[in-house]
Amino acid sequence: MRFFSDNAAPACPAVIEALVAANAQDTAYDGDRWSQTLDGALSDLFETPVEALWVPTGTAANALALAALCPPHGAIFCHREAHIQCDEGGAPEFYTHGAKLLLLEGEGAKLAPDTIDAAAAAIRDDVHQVQPHAISITNATEAGRVYAPDEVAAIGAVARRRGLALHMDGARFANAVAALGCAPADVTWRAGVDALSFGFVKNGGMSAEALVFFRPGLAAATRYRRKRAGHLQSKGRYLAAQILAMLEGDRWLDNARAANAGAALIAAAAPHRLVEPVEANEVFVRLTSDEAARLRAAGFDFYDWGEGQARFVTAWDQGEEAVRPLAQAIAAL
Amino acid sequence: MRFFSDNAAPACPAVIEALVAANAQDTAYDGDRWSQTLDGALSDLFETPVEALWVPTGTAANALALAALCPPHGAIFCHREAHIQCDEGGAPEFYTHGAKLLLLEGEGAKLAPDTIDAAAAAIRDDVHQVQPHAISITNATEAGRVYAPDEVAAIGAVARRRGLALHMDGARFANAVAALGCAPADVTWRAGVDALSFGFVKNGGMSAEALVFFRPGLAAATRYRRKRAGHLQSKGRYLAAQILAMLEGDRWLDNARAANAGAALIAAAAPHRLVEPVEANEVFVRLTSDEAARLRAAGFDFYDWGEGQARFVTAWDQGEEAVRPLAQAIAAL
Amino acid sequence: MRFFSDNAAPACPAVIEALVAANAQDTAYDGDRWSQTLDGALSDLFETPVEALWVPTGTAANALALAALCPPHGAIFCHREAHIQCDEGGAPEFYTHGAKLLLLEGEGAKLAPDTIDAAAAAIRDDVHQVQPHAISITNATEAGRVYAPDEVAAIGAVARRRGLALHMDGARFANAVAALGCAPADVTWRAGVDALSFGFVKNGGMSAEALVFFRPGLAAATRYRRKRAGHLQSKGRYLAAQILAMLEGDRWLDNARAANAGAALIAAAAPHRLVEPVEANEVFVRLTSDEAARLRAAGFDFYDWGEGQARFVTAWDQGEEAVRPLAQAIAAL
Amino acid sequence: MRFFSDNAAPACPAVIEALVAANAQDTAYDGDRWSQTLDGALSDLFETPVEALWVPTGTAANALALAALCPPHGAIFCHREAHIQCDEGGAPEFYTHGAKLLLLEGEGAKLAPDTIDAAAAAIRDDVHQVQPHAISITNATEAGRVYAPDEVAAIGAVARRRGLALHMDGARFANAVAALGCAPADVTWRAGVDALSFGFVKNGGMSAEALVFFRPGLAAATRYRRKRAGHLQSKGRYLAAQILAMLEGDRWLDNARAANAGAALIAAAAPHRLVEPVEANEVFVRLTSDEAARLRAAGFDFYDWGEGQARFVTAWDQGEEAVRPLAQAIAAL
Repeated sequence: MRFFSDNAAPACPAVIEALVAANAQDTAYDGDRWSQTLDGALSDLFETPVEALWVPTGTAANALALAALCPPHGAIFCHREAHIQCDEGGAPEFYTHGAKLLLLEGEGAKLAPDTIDAAAAAIRDDVHQVQPHAISITNATEAGRVYAPDEVAAIGAVARRRGLALHMDGARFANAVAALGCAPADVTWRAGVDALSFGFVKNGGMSAEALVFFRPGLAAATRYRRKRAGHLQSKGRYLAAQILAMLEGDRWLDNARAANAGAALIAAAAPHRLVEPVEANEVFVRLTSDEAARLRAAGFDFYDWGEGQARFVTAWDQGEEAVRPLAQAIAAL
Repeated sequence: MRFFSDNAAPACPAVIEALVAANAQDTAYDGDRWSQTLDGALSDLFETPVEALWVPTGTAANALALAALCPPHGAIFCHREAHIQCDEGGAPEFYTHGAKLLLLEGEGAKLAPDTIDAAAAAIRDDVHQVQPHAISITNATEAGRVYAPDEVAAIGAVARRRGLALHMDGARFANAVAALGCAPADVTWRAGVDALSFGFVKNGGMSAEALVFFRPGLAAATRYRRKRAGHLQSKGRYLAAQILAMLEGDRWLDNARAANAGAALIAAAAPHRLVEPVEANEVFVRLTSDEAARLRAAGFDFYDWGEGQARFVTAWDQGEEAVRPLAQAIAAL
Repeated sequence: MRFFSDNAAPACPAVIEALVAANAQDTAYDGDRWSQTLDGALSDLFETPVEALWVPTGTAANALALAALCPPHGAIFCHREAHIQCDEGGAPEFYTHGAKLLLLEGEGAKLAPDTIDAAAAAIRDDVHQVQPHAISITNATEAGRVYAPDEVAAIGAVARRRGLALHMDGARFANAVAALGCAPADVTWRAGVDALSFGFVKNGGMSAEALVFFRPGLAAATRYRRKRAGHLQSKGRYLAAQILAMLEGDRWLDNARAANAGAALIAAAAPHRLVEPVEANEVFVRLTSDEAARLRAAGFDFYDWGEGQARFVTAWDQGEEAVRPLAQAIAAL
Repeated sequence: MRFFSDNAAPACPAVIEALVAANAQDTAYDGDRWSQTLDGALSDLFETPVEALWVPTGTAANALALAALCPPHGAIFCHREAHIQCDEGGAPEFYTHGAKLLLLEGEGAKLAPDTIDAAAAAIRDDVHQVQPHAISITNATEAGRVYAPDEVAAIGAVARRRGLALHMDGARFANAVAALGCAPADVTWRAGVDALSFGFVKNGGMSAEALVFFRPGLAAATRYRRKRAGHLQSKGRYLAAQILAMLEGDRWLDNARAANAGAALIAAAAPHRLVEPVEANEVFVRLTSDEAARLRAAGFDFYDWGEGQARFVTAWDQGEEAVRPLAQAIAAL
């Protein structure tokens, strides 16, 4: 069974059904009836008027968001292990036309407000140094950790005080919200977030993420940038339909809860092995290479994660039942 | 009935079935078994080893192709009405980092070899003028016209003589090949084409086009650029599966033949109204505004195309049967 | 004697003297006492508060101006023969990160307000088409013609009505103002110009042009872009000193008047040969290849300018006395 | 007396004389007789055929060099304190169209070969991670330290083994060579350097640096990029003349030796205060804020350099005689 990544999972049945249901002639691009519903559905979810654009990948969502928040000659604070720095092939630099990512440290791939503040304070305000314009945080983080609303709000306060925009990479936003049990609004715009990459693909979607703008005025230019980047699909209704299917009846939360529960079960099986507290759907454990080999021999696939460590990620279809064999196998090592 | 564009059509049943069949866990990105088959399937079709990348839009395919063929400080010859110039929101400039499109005239949105040659000859070879590095032609063209193999070969000869690369925007490549009845190879690499944007979305696909490289060495950097542009979908198997379904049993040709037949029927209904010869699946006709209004009142939707003209585009599901009412309504005007 | 271009002329004595006088230790970049004086000197000249940045070339001035006025996904209207289109190696595309130049026709390389208006009206306001954000005109034009204040104002009115910014490439602004006899303000900000590339190099300077912003708020980001482009010279005082020397005692106008007078003398010698009215310091004449050869044999260097035509450009040191031999030689053909 | 930076110094007399001597009419851009001599003069100096381009700033030289060595989707290793990272306003990202700088640690702002090798080894060879294409080192470094030929050669060996290009930022190359007493070739191409930013402005020039390519084939595209960046000055002869004046009779070395001697005298006055060994013309010393205030009260200007430290930089005109008062004042603290 594969625990490489939640992005290897299939799409959930409701998403497939939505695609089939959307398979009729309609207006192209985002003029169709599904796309036209998106702002409303997400405004309802976030309890505030938002503007949302579908895009096919989290990389596109992140890069478009950063381009909306930072000029080419500016910089963006992020964690040294942030996905935008480590795993997006330079997409932020491409979309922003060369803005700099300024890398900060922080436990659990989380940024602390003081760390950001100190880094900003150390930059001379002159043309020789690239000036910060934005902060990007990931929730849940690349280490499977979750920012609570008050933690985001503390970063949001630094952002406002220093005139920086705040972006949240929410490739696993569903897992974070499911873990927090809070309103989506609490951990986003109420805490100062200007733009959210709201991920669905890792959570049972096929090829649609939502880029959600909480601050008015950011979406307009982004619509041009989306087209310019080749992300305005002519049959966009299939993307909108996926997102709407995920939002319906809180399916996005149900899927995330299942994945989180799977991860929790694995964690419970090996509490002493944990490298990081398990707060969402990623489990980082210490494993000798011999132990890793035995798990693999038993049919479990996963990534080595540095020396003596491994990462297991659970997806929407890997809830408690599905992961029990893995949990037992780890416990039995 | 809608004749706005073939990109408003639904996906054809085989594509939907392929998506459902691909809905299983597999390796992410393009490591899955569908994506891994793509080079082979397209090499078979083109009777030569090719490298192919799936991308979700024709804009992405075109822009990535041009970025592979032209440096930021270079220029690309294309027709004044080319899609890359008029309808892609500046994507070529974004992906090439600011290369110039040099606009040429030509009947039927087609470029003639002499036109290109003369334009190239008029550019001084010094650093003040942006030097041409590539030619981009569209087959079938934006005016619904088709380049035959010998016409492409004549352009290919100019390209070779002047050291220019040759790109073909094949958003409606299927309609062109269906019209020509030639081997796909004859109108591409055998005629000097280096890279082809092979369109499927307008022809019954949902969200997958193939960027096909005939010249070795171009695909490698493009894989990095595709990721950097946010076009490497994590569940890429759904894109590969669409393309494979379209290739299977020459479905891409059957779909295109149906669309072409629909267009031919409309053309036959109003030969005296035609603005352009109808060679593929687009029909440009002279219509007074009164006539246009009457057609619209009868339930036919289409674009006005400049003063006193209209454009009708047929899709894979608008073959002879489906378009007969429109043909009759035009004939009866 | 060379009539290739005014940019081949030496620097005028006052500029050399200013360089020598500035050859002392001072604060680096633009913190020195010369640079700090620039805004004031140019505000005096233009009778309004302006912000000005020295840059070494007209290409840099133009490209920085356009980047300040147009986003990467936007477009700029200019004449088909504009220097920014034909002779700057793609600098506008580089600095704007890929904005498009939309080429318009116009007699004497001049744009007419109606031409711009019609072109803007023809662009659909959707994301598929690159939207215009600015207009760039050249004064004096690439054909040696001059826009009078009311002509610029008519373009400025179109710009305001359509929400477009207005840039003036003033590589030969001095020649235009000398010809017009108007206040510099009349043909710039009072006529709606937002940014002016104020050229000195062609007019007796060595390596300094002024980028003058009439609209507040444009200079700030441009200071970052100038540094980012490598144009913030550490010993910037030598650039500021050149400009100040040119402004002192209206030397810039005296130099331009001399060059214009030289051109007028040539024109007077061959009124029937003129391709364009001579309004500044460029003379375009009809010459057979035999006649051209005879002039060259007599020691006069100049550019052929298309079939059967030639261009003569006079510089600050080529006033009436200096050009008399050429005028006589042309008259004697 | 000012010890802020060697870039605040005046131009040396020979440079001014060269400017005056070049003040005649000649061919524009780099067709003049001074520019045409540059390759030869630098090929002589480096004992190998090189291609060289004048540019006005070190930032432009560095950014053009990096653009020649690294594609937009690539990365460049450099020291965390490298000028290209800290003080060029994002120019490398602008010119490379968004390549990444990968920051490494190292004592004295120097990179060790093993550090580079380990960093390169840690990057997965897949499209998600930005792949390294080049290494950039600074000689003398931002901490005033010097790479000896064997140290550069060790880095060059890593570069070759890993297929990386090697750039040297030589803003203070003269000071490094003066300190080393080696042939310029030994510390550049013989050690594997592909491109050198050879600085003259900090060493007595006014506005000219040389970008020197040791590997054939890199200069050609760079000539287009230089124009596209607005750095091809029309009166380029004044830049070439400066460089030629500096090379004549080894003036560049004499100037650098004087500056180095000045720095050495300061260092000798306060050996116990030194933060870094003084190897070129920069002196980093520990100073309390009270001590710093006393030096400033005595008329010495310099930068604070972090908590309790200060930086003194000597220029070509601040040899032993000129700096003696400062040395005595520091010794007397």
